[in-house]
Amino acid sequence: MQDHIYKVIQLVGSSEVSTDDAIKTAIARASKTLKHLRWFEVVETRGHIENERLTHFQVTLKVGFSLEER
Amino acid sequence: MQDHIYKVIQLVGSSEVSTDDAIKTAIARASKTLKHLRWFEVVETRGHIENERLTHFQVTLKVGFSLEER
Amino acid sequence: MQDHIYKVIQLVGSSEVSTDDAIKTAIARASKTLKHLRWFEVVETRGHIENERLTHFQVTLKVGFSLEER
Amino acid sequence: MQDHIYKVIQLVGSSEVSTDDAIKTAIARASKTLKHLRWFEVVETRGHIENERLTHFQVTLKVGFSLEER
Amino acid sequence: MQDHIYKVIQLVGSSEVSTDDAIKTAIARASKTLKHLRWFEVVETRGHIENERLTHFQVTLKVGFSLEER
Amino acid sequence: MQDHIYKVIQLVGSSEVSTDDAIKTAIARASKTLKHLRWFEVVETRGHIENERLTHFQVTLKVGFSLEER
Amino acid sequence: MQDHIYKVIQLVGSSEVSTDDAIKTAIARASKTLKHLRWFEVVETRGHIENERLTHFQVTLKVGFSLEER
Amino acid sequence: MQDHIYKVIQLVGSSEVSTDDAIKTAIARASKTLKHLRWFEVVETRGHIENERLTHFQVTLKVGFSLEER
Amino acid sequence: MQDHIYKVIQLVGSSEVSTDDAIKTAIARASKTLKHLRWFEVVETRGHIENERLTHFQVTLKVGFSLEER
Amino acid sequence: MQDHIYKVIQLVGSSEVSTDDAIKTAIARASKTLKHLRWFEVVETRGHIENERLTHFQVTLKVGFSLEER
Amino acid sequence: MQDHIYKVIQLVGSSEVSTDDAIKTAIARASKTLKHLRWFEVVETRGHIENERLTHFQVTLKVGFSLEER
Amino acid sequence: MQDHIYKVIQLVGSSEVSTDDAIKTAIARASKTLKHLRWFEVVETRGHIENERLTHFQVTLKVGFSLEER
Repeated sequence: MQDHIYKVIQLVGSSEVSTDDAIKTAIARASKTLKHLRWFEVVETRGHIENERLTHFQVTLKVGFSLEER
Repeated sequence: MQDHIYKVIQLVGSSEVSTDDAIKTAIARASKTLKHLRWFEVVETRGHIENERLTHFQVTLKVGFSLEER
Repeated sequence: MQDHIYKVIQLVGSSEVSTDDAIKTAIARASKTLKHLRWFEVVETRGHIENERLTHFQVTLKVGFSLEER
Repeated sequence: MQDHIYKVIQLVGSSEVSTDDAIKTAIARASKTLKHLRWFEVVETRGHIENERLTHFQVTLKVGFSLEER
Repeated sequence: MQDHIYKVIQLVGSSEVSTDDAIKTAIARASKTLKHLRWFEVVETRGHIENERLTHFQVTLKVGFSLEER
Repeated sequence: MQDHIYKVIQLVGSSEVSTDDAIKTAIARASKTLKHLRWFEVVETRGHIENERLTHFQVTLKVGFSLEER
Repeated sequence: MQDHIYKVIQLVGSSEVSTDDAIKTAIARASKTLKHLRWFEVVETRGHIENERLTHFQVTLKVGFSLEER
Repeated sequence: MQDHIYKVIQLVGSSEVSTDDAIKTAIARASKTLKHLRWFEVVETRGHIENERLTHFQVTLKVGFSLEER
Repeated sequence: MQDHIYKVIQLVGSSEVSTDDAIKTAIARASKTLKHLRWFEVVETRGHIENERLTHFQVTLKVGFSLEER
Repeated sequence: MQDHIYKVIQLVGSSEVSTDDAIKTAIARASKTLKHLRWFEVVETRGHIENERLTHFQVTLKVGFSLEER
Repeated sequence: MQDHIYKVIQLVGSSEVSTDDAIKTAIARASKTLKHLRWFEVVETRGHIENERLTHFQVTLKVGFSLEER
Repeated sequence: MQDHIYKVIQLVGSSEVSTDDAIKTAIARASKTLKHLRWFEVVETRGHIENERLTHFQVTLKVGFSLEER
């Protein structure tokens, strides 16, 4: 893994179901346009409330991907 | 949404089930006495352990609500 | 000023005009229901964008007020 | 202690005597209007100086209280 | 707004006029190449000084935009 | 609970299932060699991605345990 | 600009007008006794409130200056 | 002191008397099982409240000790 | 207090007696060479340990003083 | 340098040799696809260990580049 | 790497030569008593000065190791 | 070392060679006008890039010195 270079981008995923699902949603979306995704890190967990009910979770992630083969 | 004013309070919700459930518990309690809840942000996730088992999750939230109609 | 006690609350003010105006808007609103406001501290400066234009600034403040005469 | 909900408020206590006394002063004041206080956490320790002498300590606390029986 | 995905990028805008203008300058530039900008958050406010005068403000922003229709 | 002393260690648990499960995995492992575990606090939530899919969550915890009876 | 050495000091400027003016006030004052000021960075933005009105902004700055020709 | 190696552990001491006493309590306990303690650093100061009175202070410390002669 | 300018310096005071005494020691020393000291803020609390006993507390302070009459 | 706009991206460089070399590796890679790189800032320094030996350093950087001529 | 558990400890290494060497010194010492070391992260870089010369660098690390085979 | 008082100043050193050399450059410069330097702590590591090459490292330090004999 020596001399590898990674780029880290920041994404916000959301889900009506759970915080874990919001993470998966963001990674699924990132994998459509980026290859070699390697890891993520949760930066912030938020959510929206309407009519006194939690409507969706919103998780901000840092996602790292390898620049190797680009 | 211009010129809106929000107040932000801090709550700790707990749950034997999950971190997501601890969040929902806190919001349900807040909605009993406050109206116009708009968003939350997770500040801290903790929990208690008894007899070597996790007994409940405890999540500290900032919750924002609109002061509009008060 | 010895033995004084203050309470600190968190507010979010917004303004279409400027960040300074968003601060003043929040303080004006707080002074409707609270007396003896003494100081504020900016916690976060954000804003919303619509149709590629900044529509309003949104400033989160801590506001301290004296509990003396309550 | 499962499914308990707490609210966390921020107070500033001051004392001419000591930082510990400033903490106690804030808690004594809070207990006049709030019940079920459970814990505190020191956020910031400051103080004022006049005529080259420390005149009083000023300690900012987060104070948590149970919303159970309210 | 459920299941939306946002990307967050970091920009530095500068202005000889004001901090608010530095923010607007950065957003105007971002909107040339990106669509669906939704919000910004101020990360850092700096500036340069020459000949003992402030020559320009420099504001670092996080800017979030929707990946919906891309 | 007066005059109690606790030690705080840092652990990283992982799980293919959920962030909550990663927490439980770490606590179960800690309880094999340590007694009197009392609380935990989430320090960081990360995860690994392979072939564009989230393979496992990885949660860093601080875990506190009592030194009483050792 | 290689091998240059800078010193960084911390100043608090205040203004009845605006946060930007509080910054300029601090830099104007610093330039009376220091030469080769190069940059500033905002550390904290606060303000005082009297009779329910914002009386002045107070901005804490780090200011860097070159030690070259001293 | 060159090429020395230290280990840093985290402890929580408590005391009914004062924050300083909570620090001393933690160090006294640590010195029972560890040698060559060199320094400490306060990480967090908290406390418990019962029946509207502060019952004990709780101070979290990092404590460093030399691995030299082990 | 409008348009006042303050300078903030950082000092470390120590004391064999208490953390509060370490703060007072630092302020007493600062007042020998600086006038118009106005406030302090605790940045860090540390201490040294020798022969398994706490030998002295060491408190790092930011101290603000007015540049008015200089 | 007035009214310039910069974009800031985050990269992770690695090297078997040194932390400084990991920084240079990341900048060399960035300069293949980006022009007008202006500055970097170290965000985090980590590394991997195998068979009880440090195998490579891994440095996370923020890298700023001018959007001027794009 | 699923369901692995790691423990993270904190060490301070020092060296008269370089910051990188201080890191290696700490890892070499840790590997004498711990197996399965996996990664490190720099927490703080400090150093001592005597007779106006830097005498040694001192780097605080978090070091993670697998609890697998213990 | 009891009852000693230290002052802490902030310096930025730069070097074309290495981060360690930037630290040494800043300390060498400080020792020209200050005596009794005791320790330093790295606050930030940055650098400049020109023509796609790293031209110099820039390290911000806190430097502590004893006020004993002044």
